[in-house]
Amino acid sequence: MQPSGSPLAQLRRGHEDLVLDLLRKHGPLSRGELGKRCGLSRTTLYDIIAGLMASGAVVTAAQEDAAPRGRGRPAETLTLNPDAGQAIGIDFARRAVHVAAVNVAHEIVGSASEAHAADLPWEDRVELAERLVGTLTGGSLRLGALSAIGVGVVGPVGEPEGEEDGRHLDALPELLVKRFGVPVLVDNNTRLAALAESIWGAAAGGQDVLYLRLSHGVGGGLVVNGSLHRGAYGLSGEFGHITVEPGGAPCDCGGAGCLETVASIRGLLDSYRAAGGRADDVSALLAAAGAGEEAALGVLAKAGAQVGAVLAALCNAIGPSVIVIGGELAEAGPALFGPIERTLTAHILPISRHRISLRRGTLGDVAGALGGIALVLHESPLLSRYPQIPDHIDQLRQP
Amino acid sequence: MQPSGSPLAQLRRGHEDLVLDLLRKHGPLSRGELGKRCGLSRTTLYDIIAGLMASGAVVTAAQEDAAPRGRGRPAETLTLNPDAGQAIGIDFARRAVHVAAVNVAHEIVGSASEAHAADLPWEDRVELAERLVGTLTGGSLRLGALSAIGVGVVGPVGEPEGEEDGRHLDALPELLVKRFGVPVLVDNNTRLAALAESIWGAAAGGQDVLYLRLSHGVGGGLVVNGSLHRGAYGLSGEFGHITVEPGGAPCDCGGAGCLETVASIRGLLDSYRAAGGRADDVSALLAAAGAGEEAALGVLAKAGAQVGAVLAALCNAIGPSVIVIGGELAEAGPALFGPIERTLTAHILPISRHRISLRRGTLGDVAGALGGIALVLHESPLLSRYPQIPDHIDQLRQP
Repeated sequence: MQPSGSPLAQLRRGHEDLVLDLLRKHGPLSRGELGKRCGLSRTTLYDIIAGLMASGAVVTAAQEDAAPRGRGRPAETLTLNPDAGQAIGIDFARRAVHVAAVNVAHEIVGSASEAHAADLPWEDRVELAERLVGTLTGGSLRLGALSAIGVGVVGPVGEPEGEEDGRHLDALPELLVKRFGVPVLVDNNTRLAALAESIWGAAAGGQDVLYLRLSHGVGGGLVVNGSLHRGAYGLSGEFGHITVEPGGAPCDCGGAGCLETVASIRGLLDSYRAAGGRADDVSALLAAAGAGEEAALGVLAKAGAQVGAVLAALCNAIGPSVIVIGGELAEAGPALFGPIERTLTAHILPISRHRISLRRGTLGDVAGALGGIALVLHESPLLSRYPQIPDHIDQLRQP
Repeated sequence: MQPSGSPLAQLRRGHEDLVLDLLRKHGPLSRGELGKRCGLSRTTLYDIIAGLMASGAVVTAAQEDAAPRGRGRPAETLTLNPDAGQAIGIDFARRAVHVAAVNVAHEIVGSASEAHAADLPWEDRVELAERLVGTLTGGSLRLGALSAIGVGVVGPVGEPEGEEDGRHLDALPELLVKRFGVPVLVDNNTRLAALAESIWGAAAGGQDVLYLRLSHGVGGGLVVNGSLHRGAYGLSGEFGHITVEPGGAPCDCGGAGCLETVASIRGLLDSYRAAGGRADDVSALLAAAGAGEEAALGVLAKAGAQVGAVLAALCNAIGPSVIVIGGELAEAGPALFGPIERTLTAHILPISRHRISLRRGTLGDVAGALGGIALVLHESPLLSRYPQIPDHIDQLRQP
């Protein structure tokens, strides 16, 4: 096989996409009908079809009853294989791996998640991801037609000189390429969640969206003027590291008093315990708030006010029409959204009030994995100005 | 004349642009040479040329010495008229009008400014603008070839239902159309300054630029991913209304403790007087700081720290590569830029430090007017995704 980055390989992939696209739009077609519609020579078309059938992307359709009989065998029709995965999204979150896959018809064929310890080595995370992919559609998903994997990771991605803050992310694409043998595209997982919520989720169709994720970390992503925004050095959407308490608690980023120190799961649990509350995890805290407990409601109200003030500043600067809040803490509902909305309204430019819709994310914890799929399929207009799969990663594809 | 919005008028304008563009690129050309290059019929071309000469956009070039003699008169060559204005930018600032013009070769042929009282009626401001335009290039600028006027105004522009916060901006385009008889495009003047600084000024070539203007008001503009950013409702870049002192001094916007209350000229003068300083205007304050006076340095340092904190938050969110600071207060130099940079560095995500270049604007107080020109010429790739001249304003053009 040619290296995937070569002009010949690109041409071949273009032909494959053409055939897959025709089958997607028209349903089952015979070789002859495909030939009429695709404009490829008979030799090229048959070669492309043979490749697609070998990879499992295309299968022969069941013979129709109305097929002509008598004069030799009826023309065989071809169809997309609903069990063939075309793209996989993997979100390597801080304490969990989430996967999702779409078939060659670009239908989501399933998603799966599994929690793990925060210090699990990358090799084990990749193995976990592979196992989770294996469970999709009851293990019947064929990966032969796989074209790419979109991967979300924690923290900034897109450093100019490949420095990744000591997180050794360089090894990750290679590990994945070894396992799956296809191009791998890595991006920040929260930015990918913003993308997915803006395509399929709470902000579907939005052209100016601010996505904030309140989870173990606090981060976000921006859709600006109809495009997913990356920032000059891939360093955008770092809402969690906006200072809200100058000289406050130290943050993992090296700063102090960042929004993440007060509005992440750990930050909230710390505040709750300091206020005399007892909770080992976020669900206990949310349950206490749901039961109307003062201390729990108080820490959510305080964090909500700080989130609202940050959102107001960002709205004045960027002017979104929709704000989506995702992450485990979004499940707190009105106990958190009430204070957020009150502070947002109080601090936003008065003429902007009532122009911004505050919503809870709808895609849950697989938003990042779904965003990975959107990224590699690169079909959304939101990505029209976003960088394509970089050469250096594409070339890692196995021969 | 056809209404300018009609298909026929658009076609004619397209032909005119074609001829002007050929003369811009090739220098003087004869009618015959133009005919070979433009592909228009002889009748159409001669009609277009006659119109351009009548409007003053095109003139006959001086006869060259090498022109053939003897056999009839030499072919007359045509050239762009360097004194013909093609586009005018006007910035109606709070207390001054700034104008600038480019000729048909898109060279800036001059700019002019004049201060006025803050409550000067719009009719008088428009008259002042017309007088200033009349002074450009010593009064020799011909406006017959004028194609459009780009106008900057204070405050948000682009409200969905034409509501403009009681500022009666609706009348402005009509006033200007009456005076100049060409389409008028109105936008926020600080956003236009951001555009001009990103095309010709301190951030020339920048794809991700944050522009902050510290003047009588505090505002800004964003170039995001290579596009000037407008925001969902035209409400972006309102950096001056980000809360920096919750419950602080009341702001003109209806909020309290906005950045504008502490970092505008009035905010700084108030702080300076409260600290025992004496200054009637911004130049006296800057002179005192230049002379090393403690009180003056102190208020600049405090305002600079608040500006730096806001910039850090915005950098974490948006990820620009260049920050440009313009407006009268930028003239304070290190007394202001030092504290801004220190706070910015302290509050920005540590891995973003040294990646962001903080610069002083280079276009001075005509940046907004120059941005108006850039907007109507619509030639910068920064505007490729920006809204075009809206129909309802274009249709105001006089018959």
